[in-house]
Amino acid sequence: MRQLAKELKVSVATVSKALNDSHEISEQTKKKVLEGASRLNYTINPYASSLRNKKSKTIAAILPEVADHFFSLAINGIQAIAEQNGYHVLIYLSHEKFSNEMAIIEDCKSGRVDGVLISVTSETSNADHLLKLQQKNIPIVFFDREFEGFPGSKVVTNDFDSGNRAAKHLFKNGCTKIAFLSISSCLSICRKRAEGFKAAATGLKMRTHSDIVVMEAENNQELQNKIRKLLRSKNRPDGIIASVERIAMAVYLVCKEMGISIPGQLKVVAFSAIETASILNPSLTTITQPAFEIGSAAAELLFKQMKKRSADVDEETIILPSILIERDSSSHHA
Amino acid sequence: MRQLAKELKVSVATVSKALNDSHEISEQTKKKVLEGASRLNYTINPYASSLRNKKSKTIAAILPEVADHFFSLAINGIQAIAEQNGYHVLIYLSHEKFSNEMAIIEDCKSGRVDGVLISVTSETSNADHLLKLQQKNIPIVFFDREFEGFPGSKVVTNDFDSGNRAAKHLFKNGCTKIAFLSISSCLSICRKRAEGFKAAATGLKMRTHSDIVVMEAENNQELQNKIRKLLRSKNRPDGIIASVERIAMAVYLVCKEMGISIPGQLKVVAFSAIETASILNPSLTTITQPAFEIGSAAAELLFKQMKKRSADVDEETIILPSILIERDSSSHHA
Repeated sequence: MRQLAKELKVSVATVSKALNDSHEISEQTKKKVLEGASRLNYTINPYASSLRNKKSKTIAAILPEVADHFFSLAINGIQAIAEQNGYHVLIYLSHEKFSNEMAIIEDCKSGRVDGVLISVTSETSNADHLLKLQQKNIPIVFFDREFEGFPGSKVVTNDFDSGNRAAKHLFKNGCTKIAFLSISSCLSICRKRAEGFKAAATGLKMRTHSDIVVMEAENNQELQNKIRKLLRSKNRPDGIIASVERIAMAVYLVCKEMGISIPGQLKVVAFSAIETASILNPSLTTITQPAFEIGSAAAELLFKQMKKRSADVDEETIILPSILIERDSSSHHA
Repeated sequence: MRQLAKELKVSVATVSKALNDSHEISEQTKKKVLEGASRLNYTINPYASSLRNKKSKTIAAILPEVADHFFSLAINGIQAIAEQNGYHVLIYLSHEKFSNEMAIIEDCKSGRVDGVLISVTSETSNADHLLKLQQKNIPIVFFDREFEGFPGSKVVTNDFDSGNRAAKHLFKNGCTKIAFLSISSCLSICRKRAEGFKAAATGLKMRTHSDIVVMEAENNQELQNKIRKLLRSKNRPDGIIASVERIAMAVYLVCKEMGISIPGQLKVVAFSAIETASILNPSLTTITQPAFEIGSAAAELLFKQMKKRSADVDEETIILPSILIERDSSSHHA
């Protein structure tokens, strides 16, 4: 700053005021100072500057992982809207750990971002950290994985109906022992999908009981071990509903290894936005969420809230329906 | 702060000094103030605090997309090392646009992060923006997609050899017209992979000429159109080397649509760390990069540079070899 002041033959205070857009400084001088600063590759200290205008021009997207196609597409939707608003998106990955999520929220609380989009982890059992963030007037919007009962806006899909439809589809195609493979008993999307499944199973009076199996696993190896165990059991299911994409991938890999034919011996339906469903062996029947649209709608709600002058919290819920796309993995004729 | 001072019956200055870890304040008082601050859900203003200690405890990972398995695995490698060092990772996506990359680097320059890991876009044609960042003493380490000639450290794979091996493999299995599908003529990894391919093609004296085709495409739809055109042409290749994962996926989808059998009519090898290669139809022969290891090694180089007291720039290159995994998509007997 001193160098710049010397060069422009003005005082350091003038440079500082000009960089801070002070009303005491003429437009002409401001222009001169900004040009000089740019020439010297001088960046206005963001911390000092943010203290002043309280805007980081950045939003956070907090999500469990990016290997899942739902999330990689949702991110694209979020970024499209952020770009329109001239905002950066910082992506934080929680890796399904509640402790990571809390640390990330702590980081967000400190003013680094102006708003937060979040899909909670499968471990998230309370929302104190999110409430504290909200109390700091940093708006939060949930996408896909909400925290139920939290006072805020969210964009979700029709999880109950989708779980219900998946079960009916497998039943129609001949399954009698359907297992719903969940990754968490507390995650709202898994619970609702499972409830839809259960309602269908009860209604259809399936001959043998159908099960909801919670597959908590630290990594894909552990997940595959649990699936191996399930498929070796006496009461092996003849149909599987995978509540998330990576469960479906693990089921495919284990079936290949064990020589179990899909759909001959086991039919599979997966909640997934995977773009390569049709080129898997066999092609995979999916409940496909409108991932891009969920991301962009959530970002739109967030910007709406950020632009509001009042601190009142919006509580809007948008439900974007998923569609069942029938492919070979669940077909009747093997 | 005033509320806290009142509650603890100390002056505002004392609270401020305690929160700033001043040597003027006793440990006992500091402890009391920090406990009180935590109780009141008071976050030390990060901007003010960062002005003081000049550490954001955050690194940036800048990459083109997350839908590619190479990147989703590399991110996991980066985060593993960041976690060990008590750092957050902010992920920025450039979506293969040079203009986005420049805006992101501008954002990083402003002190939001202490170091940058980057895989450049397929459009990145100069490195002025990166040099300016480096001049601000924010270290940069490249992973996978380097900017050649940039004075800094990088972790890459053996791209020339891998391209060479892929071509020889397809030739051995009967291909005579091999097309190398690149996404960019300036991206170093694509160029090196293509050069390795060309060297093999020349050495093997393939009967008809083999081609390097650059498939610049804004989106997957456009990419598929270009592949459709290539596969409809009179001089249709009988072997394809996909330089990145999404080209391989597009080739599979187009072949399914056009009824071209893989590997019968077209053999495919792809640079990809896709975990579901074995359950694709047909299973996909890959040049698999050690993605996690590339990410973690790059993060380690970055932390090493960040911990150094001197501003000298390290120029270390680590090459982690990829492996060819033969599967059905390139097999001799269809």
